[in-house]
Amino acid sequence: MSAFSRFTPLIQSLPATVPFVGPEAIERQRGRKIAARIGANESGFGPADSVLLAIRETAGETWKYADPENYDLRQALAGHLGTSPANIAIGEGIDGLLGQIVRLVIEPGMPVVTSLGGYPTFNYHVAGHGGRLVTVPYVNDREDIEGLLAAVKRENAPLVYFANPDNPMGSWWPADRVLEFATALPETTLLILDEAYCETAPPKTLPSIESLIDRPNVIRTRTFSKAYGLAGSRVGYALTTPGTAQAFDKIRNHFGMNRIGIAAAMAALANQDYLKEVVLRISRSRDRISMIARENGFHPLPSATNFVAVDCGRDAAYGRAIVDGLMNDHGIFIRMPGVAPLNRCIRISTGPDAEMNLLEAALPEVLGKLAAAG
Amino acid sequence: MSAFSRFTPLIQSLPATVPFVGPEAIERQRGRKIAARIGANESGFGPADSVLLAIRETAGETWKYADPENYDLRQALAGHLGTSPANIAIGEGIDGLLGQIVRLVIEPGMPVVTSLGGYPTFNYHVAGHGGRLVTVPYVNDREDIEGLLAAVKRENAPLVYFANPDNPMGSWWPADRVLEFATALPETTLLILDEAYCETAPPKTLPSIESLIDRPNVIRTRTFSKAYGLAGSRVGYALTTPGTAQAFDKIRNHFGMNRIGIAAAMAALANQDYLKEVVLRISRSRDRISMIARENGFHPLPSATNFVAVDCGRDAAYGRAIVDGLMNDHGIFIRMPGVAPLNRCIRISTGPDAEMNLLEAALPEVLGKLAAAG
Repeated sequence: MSAFSRFTPLIQSLPATVPFVGPEAIERQRGRKIAARIGANESGFGPADSVLLAIRETAGETWKYADPENYDLRQALAGHLGTSPANIAIGEGIDGLLGQIVRLVIEPGMPVVTSLGGYPTFNYHVAGHGGRLVTVPYVNDREDIEGLLAAVKRENAPLVYFANPDNPMGSWWPADRVLEFATALPETTLLILDEAYCETAPPKTLPSIESLIDRPNVIRTRTFSKAYGLAGSRVGYALTTPGTAQAFDKIRNHFGMNRIGIAAAMAALANQDYLKEVVLRISRSRDRISMIARENGFHPLPSATNFVAVDCGRDAAYGRAIVDGLMNDHGIFIRMPGVAPLNRCIRISTGPDAEMNLLEAALPEVLGKLAAAG
Repeated sequence: MSAFSRFTPLIQSLPATVPFVGPEAIERQRGRKIAARIGANESGFGPADSVLLAIRETAGETWKYADPENYDLRQALAGHLGTSPANIAIGEGIDGLLGQIVRLVIEPGMPVVTSLGGYPTFNYHVAGHGGRLVTVPYVNDREDIEGLLAAVKRENAPLVYFANPDNPMGSWWPADRVLEFATALPETTLLILDEAYCETAPPKTLPSIESLIDRPNVIRTRTFSKAYGLAGSRVGYALTTPGTAQAFDKIRNHFGMNRIGIAAAMAALANQDYLKEVVLRISRSRDRISMIARENGFHPLPSATNFVAVDCGRDAAYGRAIVDGLMNDHGIFIRMPGVAPLNRCIRISTGPDAEMNLLEAALPEVLGKLAAAG
């Protein structure tokens, strides 16, 4: 295909890719509609009715650009978190913020530390800026804090990514260990503490806001995509010092936020009762997934997130066969980790009972078919 | 303020800024609500009712990420434009696409050609990637095609920006001159042909799609923000060869589009009757603005856009005083070009009669007050 001849050498070296194949693309590829969308860690429980109302009421305002300062949302978040609006940067989901953070710090060839099998979209952004990924294997299905710290020091890395709770394994570290990690890092290393799943974590998993908010080398990322049920609205935020937060203003797409999404996020934040209710439903759904896994001879891993990693006890080919069987024969969309040894697991997002019923019925059929085949 | 110490040298050299101060920020600064929002070239006519309906009906789907391939919208646009989906890249408004294009092409120090006083957000992205702006003055309030071409050749510039119709002046070149320009450029220069205002342009302003679609060094950018009335939905698109379009897939935020915005854009595209109607209303509003300008002794410039640049016949300080007087005393939000000699003008967006009535009543008062002050 004929492309412009003078893209930068870095761009020319990059593949055209997508960090995750979307469920719609899978539907098109397989020629089959998805019956249970429990693969992208979205929330099938959806947002609160008050959020849907806010969306419908804001529709008539969508001819206006959103406020490029995101003033109201930053005020609301600051009130909710007990911090200042100056500590908060808003972006098009955590994915968008991760791209910006990598751009702020990484020049071609610089080392970036993350876990082997950690969030692919972060790795995508690192590659996109020419960074050199330095990966540290998980230990016992958790990110290896000591290993990450050693890699940072060995490489003099300017950037390290750490998710707590973790995706794709659902594991977590207690707040005191996370705090130790953050404070042990050199001041010349920026920590991305990705807390996309913070709302579903057990008590004492999240360091307090104040414990890290004065550290210019720590950015915590959070989102309305998971427990708040607003993945399609694209609203995430970064928590850090005012000085570090201001760096986003140097490069972000100031008019990049959509006005309805901002209104939806504001309404979601205002309805903490619904959040509590949905976190309970997510917890029950995790239990249900775990039960289904055990009934099929699998080992569900403990989870602090809105999904469960299920150890199928064999190799990646087996996991892949289950993922494909569920989709191709039953329209059940799930995913799996991308690298060994994590990819002995499949990853199932929590969701309403209807989706869980489909999974419960389909999984034994898929496994039976696989056993018969081989 | 305390910021992370190891941002890249480029980032450290950049100011924290915003290309445009948003109307909401102006409201907060002045402590006055906007009564007529006719400054950001949004469409106060709003989107079609069918679009509002689509938004409300899609609200319940916003727990799902949007399709990262934007398949349906690309199909719909391809059908509308008579091209292939592979010719189309979708982004978070033209602003988002401009940032991506600059990143694809520009390394620090490289020359980028644009008009002096052209679109500030493009300049912002060029600065953000360390590019060196080479500016060519407008001639007779139009972008200077010959001058841009000469600058490209003199500098061996890899990137040139050209808007047709133009913002902030509302002027335009006929299609044949644009086509001459595009085909005269070296193949090693990427042309951004920004057609944000294409829907409101007179006949024979836009080169046909097929006339440029096979050129890997031409990207045309278009948006649902202007005539379609969806600025807050953040949906823009780029038209180019499949090879050049694919470059966006190397760096974009694949899950950056909001699901409701995509649905809104699809519905807007499907309602061409409404577009025709709104283009007529925009045209009438341009006439009304021109009449108001003349009644106050000013010279309205011809416009192919959804705004009118009004030559106030004096200097930038006078224009600024009018802009400030309209906002501070009457809550009428307009803008003005940023550099001489364009900033002898004020820039007024088209809008419904209610807004025009406010403008008509307020402008003589502001001018009278300025005359009295001396």
